[in-house]
Amino acid sequence: MVAAAPMAEILKRAGAERVSETAAKALAEVVRDIAFEVAKDAVRFAQHAGRKTVKRSDVELARKRI
Amino acid sequence: MVAAAPMAEILKRAGAERVSETAAKALAEVVRDIAFEVAKDAVRFAQHAGRKTVKRSDVELARKRI
Repeated sequence: MVAAAPMAEILKRAGAERVSETAAKALAEVVRDIAFEVAKDAVRFAQHAGRKTVKRSDVELARKRI
Repeated sequence: MVAAAPMAEILKRAGAERVSETAAKALAEVVRDIAFEVAKDAVRFAQHAGRKTVKRSDVELARKRI
């Protein structure tokens, strides 16, 4: 779901001269894990508000917890 | 770079019954921003270790800061 290639690009944009393949993969893992943590919180916030639909405001609230 | 469609999938996997389009976009923004923050730290850690190549260990160290 989160590919390593765009992660290598992000590392370059962040100033990396060179990026090892495993570094790009590690960043993809970080991103995937954090996205899931934020998503779980967002779902909880939607449920807490009595909604079945997760909205932008749920994700924004979840973001503040990381 | 981070598409909204896989973010909607992540929200579903996290338990969402329904996901608004803007929620998926918001999660994509969160992911993009966090990836860049982690990447900047990883680059600093590589430089601090006297390397031009960002390695997995730099990303893992950067992850601990968020």
